[in-house]
Amino acid sequence: MPYVPVPADQPGIRGLLAFKPASGVFVARMIHQLLRGDSPMSAVDRERIAAYVSQVNDCEFCARSHAAAMHHLELAAHSSAVPAQRAEAPSPLLAALLEIAGAVIRGGHFVTDEKIDAARAAGADDETIHDTVLIAAAFCMVNRYVDGLGAITPTDDEAYDAMGVQMAAYGYVGAAPPNSSAATDSSAATGG
Amino acid sequence: MPYVPVPADQPGIRGLLAFKPASGVFVARMIHQLLRGDSPMSAVDRERIAAYVSQVNDCEFCARSHAAAMHHLELAAHSSAVPAQRAEAPSPLLAALLEIAGAVIRGGHFVTDEKIDAARAAGADDETIHDTVLIAAAFCMVNRYVDGLGAITPTDDEAYDAMGVQMAAYGYVGAAPPNSSAATDSSAATGG
Repeated sequence: MPYVPVPADQPGIRGLLAFKPASGVFVARMIHQLLRGDSPMSAVDRERIAAYVSQVNDCEFCARSHAAAMHHLELAAHSSAVPAQRAEAPSPLLAALLEIAGAVIRGGHFVTDEKIDAARAAGADDETIHDTVLIAAAFCMVNRYVDGLGAITPTDDEAYDAMGVQMAAYGYVGAAPPNSSAATDSSAATGG
Repeated sequence: MPYVPVPADQPGIRGLLAFKPASGVFVARMIHQLLRGDSPMSAVDRERIAAYVSQVNDCEFCARSHAAAMHHLELAAHSSAVPAQRAEAPSPLLAALLEIAGAVIRGGHFVTDEKIDAARAAGADDETIHDTVLIAAAFCMVNRYVDGLGAITPTDDEAYDAMGVQMAAYGYVGAAPPNSSAATDSSAATGG
């Protein structure tokens, strides 16, 4: 039961952004920029960091929705089917970035020279390091926003799969599928 | 020594936003909305939550700059001088909101019915509760961004006082004083 009134059909951060669109639009635009804007990192890798941080922070809504978004981005990028449950090991670079993200979860001071050096040795440039820290930090915000206000958290896989389709196709601002209740609100985010 | 190259004269989050303005502008706009946009909470109370969260998260740059911003907002609101170091006890409402913010720092699941009920009993409406959780969550992001990338952290009071003046007068986007190096960049944030 959320602590503020949210539309019953808008789970997770979507409901919270709809409660106060005046701030919601700015939150959604930032998230869209971080996960879909220009970056040396692929959208898939950025979604993986978002899902990883959310999982460690025990935010079920964010962890499952961003894992679903990552899966559907992978499907869109490959002509052949990608198994939903595959557990592909991250590349050495992504593994090093996930180490940095794990430190960010604990706090900014836990990011060490050693972790940064390891990421650079694996190929990370300045912008990749910047984007990794900022995305991990941003999901420390989003996770706390979602669970701190008790946002609606679906339990069925189908709900997350449908969100993942939307998030992969539309990101976090603007267009939503014509049948979505969010289609009438240009500021609505399509996932979170 | 920051992990990414930042302008030597732009401490804290300012340098990080300048490193990548494409994302910096969205971060700054969100912070500006949360701390200066429409809210049932005063800008002073919102800065106090930002400073409190930053202090608990051990982010010296954010804690000192937002404390300075709060002080200069108070000065601007009162015709008489406000002592810089006064330790005014928060109102019962603000105390209850700071309790919620403290829970958000630990994680979203630490916000309990009891803390929300206490804030409501002290006068908080839905929007106040929403804004408190979102601001506290946002500073869990900002603090990690600043310290996770090793942003420049001044140690002298004068630097923070000057930032506080700017933050109180201009907020976090747009106009900066004519003599500021940020004046040539409309996307620059003036503190954080």
